Amino acid sequence: MNINGTPYRTIWTAADGRTVQIIDQTRLPHDLVIVDLTGLTEAARAIKDMLIRGAPLIGATAAYGMALAMAEDTSDRHLDTAATTLLATRPTAVNLRWGVERLKALLAPLPEAERLEAAYAEAARVADEDVAMCAGLGEHGLKLIRAIHQRKGGPVNILTHCNAGWLATVDWGTATAPIYKAFDAGIPIHVWVDETRPRNQGFNLTAFELGQHGVPHTCIVDNAGGHLMQHGQVDMVLVGTDRTTARGDVCNKIGTYLKALAAHDNGVPFYVALPGPTIDWTVDDGVAEIPIEERDPAEVTHITGALAEGPTATVRLTPAMSPAANPAFDVTPARLVSGLITERGVAEASRAGLAALYPEAAHGEDKGGAA
Amino acid sequence: MNINGTPYRTIWTAADGRTVQIIDQTRLPHDLVIVDLTGLTEAARAIKDMLIRGAPLIGATAAYGMALAMAEDTSDRHLDTAATTLLATRPTAVNLRWGVERLKALLAPLPEAERLEAAYAEAARVADEDVAMCAGLGEHGLKLIRAIHQRKGGPVNILTHCNAGWLATVDWGTATAPIYKAFDAGIPIHVWVDETRPRNQGFNLTAFELGQHGVPHTCIVDNAGGHLMQHGQVDMVLVGTDRTTARGDVCNKIGTYLKALAAHDNGVPFYVALPGPTIDWTVDDGVAEIPIEERDPAEVTHITGALAEGPTATVRLTPAMSPAANPAFDVTPARLVSGLITERGVAEASRAGLAALYPEAAHGEDKGGAA
Repeated sequence: MNINGTPYRTIWTAADGRTVQIIDQTRLPHDLVIVDLTGLTEAARAIKDMLIRGAPLIGATAAYGMALAMAEDTSDRHLDTAATTLLATRPTAVNLRWGVERLKALLAPLPEAERLEAAYAEAARVADEDVAMCAGLGEHGLKLIRAIHQRKGGPVNILTHCNAGWLATVDWGTATAPIYKAFDAGIPIHVWVDETRPRNQGFNLTAFELGQHGVPHTCIVDNAGGHLMQHGQVDMVLVGTDRTTARGDVCNKIGTYLKALAAHDNGVPFYVALPGPTIDWTVDDGVAEIPIEERDPAEVTHITGALAEGPTATVRLTPAMSPAANPAFDVTPARLVSGLITERGVAEASRAGLAALYPEAAHGEDKGGAA
Repeated sequence: MNINGTPYRTIWTAADGRTVQIIDQTRLPHDLVIVDLTGLTEAARAIKDMLIRGAPLIGATAAYGMALAMAEDTSDRHLDTAATTLLATRPTAVNLRWGVERLKALLAPLPEAERLEAAYAEAARVADEDVAMCAGLGEHGLKLIRAIHQRKGGPVNILTHCNAGWLATVDWGTATAPIYKAFDAGIPIHVWVDETRPRNQGFNLTAFELGQHGVPHTCIVDNAGGHLMQHGQVDMVLVGTDRTTARGDVCNKIGTYLKALAAHDNGVPFYVALPGPTIDWTVDDGVAEIPIEERDPAEVTHITGALAEGPTATVRLTPAMSPAANPAFDVTPARLVSGLITERGVAEASRAGLAALYPEAAHGEDKGGAA
């Protein structure tokens, strides 16, 4: 998508064909800083320090990290070192493991002389496949937005939470893919951007990327969405997900569940966009079965922003003596989800709905329940 | 309630019997600053610049502002000036008008020589009546908390939103009155304090006052409450209200409605604490009839907190080019409210429930519907 009129992806190779470049997302929205990854160490640090984030982008960066390692040394030993180093950066990231193992499985059997070119080619494929998946998902979501527009006539108001945008993927994003597709198709849209405390991904990333691409949007606090829905100012809620269970429960950034409740209470469709591979066929009941990460309370007690003059500053919001808790995700039960937008189409949020789109996966991991 | 071990009210007269003292609430939670109000001008500025806020406290400060004016000049002309000056500070504050008019009606017929003492005595009565009303409300709420404690055994976890604390009243608060009564009665309680973006009254005021009084509490972002309720970590939601309709709809700080939805979805009781005089008998359907104040977008785009060293700073959170919207309140329909805690007892959130407690008011303002 565009930044200041120029098309970008979140990761790409420089003119030398070797250096990998990324946007330092920790500096957004106040500064646009492009970072060169020139070797394994830089790639690992970019993942660990969260210069890049979002499962698909982590996977692509891991793949490019393996390629950068091969540019340093194509030996078996360095291949192992690269895999170990990258896997240690964010041990719970599923896409990280997937990206590393995909590259390692490809490279290990090859003669050393072929590894470098093969690694870069495969990393590029990982990136391109992600772009294709998000674009496909976007086309299916576009149909939903177009239908709302045809029914109501005016601009379609979409509320989103957190950042499931192109910055979390290689391009297009998941929740934002239908939005960009609709925008590019000339459908008038307007996006309500939830702040998404405590880490403010809505203001930091979603507002930034929508604004840079030219998509009309308005920043709101996380508290405002219910009121807007009560007054007919939201036509659709559209969010991403970190993990979707076999029956369609959706684990996403903390606060998503509250928006789903408000959507349900006001008859507003609540859609979740996800690539099929993020469905976890081994879990059914998301609320009961998914452990929720408890993150550093400092994310709640402190916040960072731009000073009127000069750089950014971090300020404490809470009384010095007050403790804070920081659950990072919540689970939205399938009963509150209008549909799951995937690269294969829009599924009902149920075991049957998902199994119809992914028969091979649903069958392979069936825990004994009826499809 | 206590600050650093010393009992305080939010407004009181100094040892000279004339100077009025308040806590500058704009400096909380990072600095405790006591401000002397020595005349009409200072009192008006304290209200206008929101050094004090909260409907009951605004009413008491208006009354003391009239008394301070009488200490300057007991003439009819200055009495009129005082009323006009104070009413202009926050034109939409109902308690402001009520406090000013109560004092003016008392003072105007009196000989000038009697006005000064009468004004201070009446302002003290306004303050004492508010304390008695909140304390009474607290006793009724205490019974609900005690019942939960007796049923479950362990600590009672209460979630609150915004600040309906003693800092918004003269003492005790509304939503916090049952909490302080339970704490003082030795019932183990723990309070989840919602941040309450955009103005952060939860972190700035509620966490401060609970912490200073010694009440166990934890700061959470506004997004977290639904997740906590899904996992049985909230026994009761307890909030205040700016305006309650004749049928029990509750207009309160933006985001309250989302917590009411989550409470309803998880079988958590959702109570609202209010002094009877805040019921608006002329309004039934809160969502349809109450206009919601749209405040300065800068409250959304910017936030103030304490720097690691030195004073506070204000930082911008949003991209410079992104617009923001800032609806300040929302309406929670009566169907989501478990009960209304008043100084006369706990009412069902319905026209019949409120009319049973306030028959004189319900009858006087009846719009034609059945009680």
